[in-house]
Amino acid sequence: MSISISIRDSIEKSSWIRKMFEEGAKLKEQFGSDNVYDFSLGNPDLEPPEEFFKAVAGIEKNRKSGAHGYMPNAGFLDVREAIGRTVARDFNIEIDGSSLVMTCGAAGGMNVILKTILEPGEEIIVIKPYFAEYGFYISNHQGVMITVDSNEDFSINIDNIEKAITEKTRGIIVNSPNNPSGKIYSSEDIKALSALLEKKYPGGRPIFILSDEPYREIVYDGKEVPSILSAYKNTFVINSYSKSLSLPGERIGYIAVNPEIESYSLVMAGLNLCNRILGFVNAPALMQRVVADLCDVTVDVDLYKSRRDLLAQGLKKSGYDFNEPEGAFYIFCKSPVMDDVAFIRHLQKYNILAVPGSGFGAPGYFRIAYCVSESVIKKAIPEFEKALKTFIAE
Amino acid sequence: MSISISIRDSIEKSSWIRKMFEEGAKLKEQFGSDNVYDFSLGNPDLEPPEEFFKAVAGIEKNRKSGAHGYMPNAGFLDVREAIGRTVARDFNIEIDGSSLVMTCGAAGGMNVILKTILEPGEEIIVIKPYFAEYGFYISNHQGVMITVDSNEDFSINIDNIEKAITEKTRGIIVNSPNNPSGKIYSSEDIKALSALLEKKYPGGRPIFILSDEPYREIVYDGKEVPSILSAYKNTFVINSYSKSLSLPGERIGYIAVNPEIESYSLVMAGLNLCNRILGFVNAPALMQRVVADLCDVTVDVDLYKSRRDLLAQGLKKSGYDFNEPEGAFYIFCKSPVMDDVAFIRHLQKYNILAVPGSGFGAPGYFRIAYCVSESVIKKAIPEFEKALKTFIAE
Repeated sequence: MSISISIRDSIEKSSWIRKMFEEGAKLKEQFGSDNVYDFSLGNPDLEPPEEFFKAVAGIEKNRKSGAHGYMPNAGFLDVREAIGRTVARDFNIEIDGSSLVMTCGAAGGMNVILKTILEPGEEIIVIKPYFAEYGFYISNHQGVMITVDSNEDFSINIDNIEKAITEKTRGIIVNSPNNPSGKIYSSEDIKALSALLEKKYPGGRPIFILSDEPYREIVYDGKEVPSILSAYKNTFVINSYSKSLSLPGERIGYIAVNPEIESYSLVMAGLNLCNRILGFVNAPALMQRVVADLCDVTVDVDLYKSRRDLLAQGLKKSGYDFNEPEGAFYIFCKSPVMDDVAFIRHLQKYNILAVPGSGFGAPGYFRIAYCVSESVIKKAIPEFEKALKTFIAE
Repeated sequence: MSISISIRDSIEKSSWIRKMFEEGAKLKEQFGSDNVYDFSLGNPDLEPPEEFFKAVAGIEKNRKSGAHGYMPNAGFLDVREAIGRTVARDFNIEIDGSSLVMTCGAAGGMNVILKTILEPGEEIIVIKPYFAEYGFYISNHQGVMITVDSNEDFSINIDNIEKAITEKTRGIIVNSPNNPSGKIYSSEDIKALSALLEKKYPGGRPIFILSDEPYREIVYDGKEVPSILSAYKNTFVINSYSKSLSLPGERIGYIAVNPEIESYSLVMAGLNLCNRILGFVNAPALMQRVVADLCDVTVDVDLYKSRRDLLAQGLKKSGYDFNEPEGAFYIFCKSPVMDDVAFIRHLQKYNILAVPGSGFGAPGYFRIAYCVSESVIKKAIPEFEKALKTFIAE
């Protein structure tokens, strides 16, 4: 073996996903990409807002010495101060830039936290359905992922979490608005979860909440995302600008730490060290300053809302079963059979690309990412309808 | 314990470095930063070249749809193609963009490779003196760092490497031009090393060279850095634009893989997967396109050369003992006593900040980073002279 066995196994395990993408690519070649309805990727189709381009141009015009050089591993101080003020307001908590670490996106932030807190063999609880990459992030740092079922409506099942807690539990990942379900966990659920974790606190060794919130700004119908950061002291919030500013390729985000967290100074020193030694070193310099300029700017969420409405209405009429998403840009739909991969393959016959729920720990479902143009959605709906009819008939 | 014990230990172990920096900061507060001669950091003081700012502005003017979105984990195809052409020319090898992975700097690249190749407990050989972060990068992926002495002039000692090779050896990190010694390993040394590794090849399980070359463009007196990539098939080159374009804060670099490497397809798939799952996902999008535009641009290396000459001359006159650096921007100087930390503390009395050789696996030396202005060097030289005299007299 030339490469690590576990990496080879991961390549093999994900080969079916690659195969699906390859088949999707073939469809696009055969029918033209306009005639293939690609709902498989969470890559926002909206361009970054106009303010982003102005901020980039402004920074280059007002050059600062050392602006592209090294800075503290946590990021530029003035950037953290600016974002800290927004965090204080939005999460209703007393916090400033010294409790922030700028990161290479949310994925970078998650790895930095897990490296900081995990001993080999310790457990991180993850609520189904979940973003598939969590499994990798946890095992990167020799942790073990423990998954628990949510309720039928994808809300948190507190009993299931209580049962899953062991002496080895070091944290729980909470992802709200949720990818893939679009669920926002209610403040009652967050309160109950916090109470449970306080109760289970074994002394000297807290159970951390890792609150992964890249979709925090993508919410509909006036819904708000409850502040986990202020609800439970041992909380890390992980945020990114990938969705709120449509910048997933730029890898920019942050970790915010509750200032009351157990062993605060050690935790902050650990995050700084891990950001450095994992090879991130720091979040990209120019993007740090750009996002600090754009604290209150987001893409036009109404556009995602009208897509959600259009798609949800069309799917419902066609007979599909799902909960309407409250946030993010995914519909997590019941497959007519438990074998979600079979149904995904069937959808491909109608030039529709989506992702099986198995990839999110939830077989029997499939994910439709509606960060695509309205015209794609409009053209796809009759195909969704035909696909379901023919599948049932078969 | 709220954080991982090994991370806590690393924080504690590096606390003396932090203490030194804190003392340095105090000196700056007390005497004004102009009167403190800070040679401690490898943070280039030269601003990025004018072409960099033009490239950034140009990219924003000629907007491309999806330019800040996700792309393949290895980076934009056109970026890799452009850089691949430069690599083919500069490393004298048949290669194209498909053998490249764009990374978050060289530190990101090193971690991605080590994660791809290492089984727990496997060994990576590192030649002293070495960049201290290698130890972290190797242990991140449960590898073991094995250090070997170089020759007196910091050239490679092939016998030492041969003795260090065991069944568990998975790779060797080569860093030329070297940080901290400024040494460029000769093509004879590279040939001998390649021959040794070919001979030691235990079948099915090659010993890789990880050639870390962020200082490749910072060389003096017409010296050239021999191409390890074309000399030995099982080679990864790790490069970054941190020094060549003065962009260390932007975290942009690449891995180039010899297309003849053992299990090429698996290696490339592994690098892609590890770039993704370690949380880098991809190198920052905007910077990818900027560096592709600047393939043949570097900062003005002559400026570093005149600093080297000025500092080397001054130190020599003052009685210091060192090999003149052939590349990078460090002088690795003999301490008058083996206790390099004691001498570093003595230098602080003269407002000089430098780093003890112990941090590079070479006690009895200290590193002077001359990526500072000429005026700092000029003012510092008499202080270096006084410091040595008084230290010997004490």
